[in-house]
Amino acid sequence: MKRNIAVILAGCGVFDGAEIHEAVLSLLAIARQGAQYQVFAPNREQAHVINHLTGELSNESRNILVESARIARGKILPLDQIQIEKFDAILFPGGFGVAKNLCTLAFDGPSCTVLPEVEQVVLDAVKAGKPIGALCIAPAMMTKILAGAEVTIGNELSTIQAIEKMGGSHIETTHGQVIIDEQYKLVTTPCYMLDASIDQIADGAENAVAALLKLCQ
Amino acid sequence: MKRNIAVILAGCGVFDGAEIHEAVLSLLAIARQGAQYQVFAPNREQAHVINHLTGELSNESRNILVESARIARGKILPLDQIQIEKFDAILFPGGFGVAKNLCTLAFDGPSCTVLPEVEQVVLDAVKAGKPIGALCIAPAMMTKILAGAEVTIGNELSTIQAIEKMGGSHIETTHGQVIIDEQYKLVTTPCYMLDASIDQIADGAENAVAALLKLCQ
Repeated sequence: MKRNIAVILAGCGVFDGAEIHEAVLSLLAIARQGAQYQVFAPNREQAHVINHLTGELSNESRNILVESARIARGKILPLDQIQIEKFDAILFPGGFGVAKNLCTLAFDGPSCTVLPEVEQVVLDAVKAGKPIGALCIAPAMMTKILAGAEVTIGNELSTIQAIEKMGGSHIETTHGQVIIDEQYKLVTTPCYMLDASIDQIADGAENAVAALLKLCQ
Repeated sequence: MKRNIAVILAGCGVFDGAEIHEAVLSLLAIARQGAQYQVFAPNREQAHVINHLTGELSNESRNILVESARIARGKILPLDQIQIEKFDAILFPGGFGVAKNLCTLAFDGPSCTVLPEVEQVVLDAVKAGKPIGALCIAPAMMTKILAGAEVTIGNELSTIQAIEKMGGSHIETTHGQVIIDEQYKLVTTPCYMLDASIDQIADGAENAVAALLKLCQ
């Protein structure tokens, strides 16, 4: 039986959704390491839409699930329908969508709120002893959900301060390095929270997935 | 000096734009094989927008360049501004966007038209002796531009017939296989024109980029 990983996306595009390279390279790492995946996303409106050419706010509105379906090639389910017992682990790629759509960290800082279905799946995974992976900015969201979690987002000072205000602890890392919180079976790596190239993102995703699968044993 | 590859996208999402896995895994293959890339796309409206969750036509309108910028993380240029002399090769990932936005193959079949800036960059590359890569459905478009080109899109009968009606010739292939037309220095591979998994797409992109870089020598 292949290990089965639930991959939770936050849209499609670094500035208002899931970071596309991190999402795709997570899926690739899962497949190349002999596991399988199912993609999920919340069925809700995005916080906003950013024109990725200009960086400007658009007046469009888009749905997180519908846009995430672009990365999943249509094979996606609403996050509130996840059956955690079917999965061996869950994985959150990064992107501003994590801090805008899955929680409000980008707008509210350490006093942010997290979507109920996101909080639920994380708490259910911990309760069932299933490991959780989080890339890029997603580790910061984990410290809001999991009291005292130890994570890495690389070395970005303001995010480290937010993590500490939320009660988490942070370990500085560089490209491809993975931090494991053994209490929560939580695997984190910085990816594009560092100024990285796409091959460094692949390294980070591969290392995080390898650590995640090892924790499944 | 690193080899420099121009990667030309057709939007962001398999059903109305660039196929995201093929695009990202092409960029990764370029970086991992020691070359660099610049992403381009036409600055034009998409043919249409497809809801990737339901498969239905949406009433939205989106711009090819703006949506492609999601895959390029904002680092993208309009295709009509490409300076071919700065590049060693050009590469087209696939997705329905190639057959809907870059040309009209999906709507008009073998009598399709190709965007002038797409045709121009392909003809300029051939004239300058620079190799061209094309994944998935993009090889079919190449046979509209390059008389008598020999390509592969895998084994899909109706597309093979369209290729032959456009004067091209087709060689059947399976996952990861690459066909090289030596006359045009044209490298093609089927990717998601076959029922493929994401690791097979990575294999195809790696093999195509390796062949492309070898032809640069």
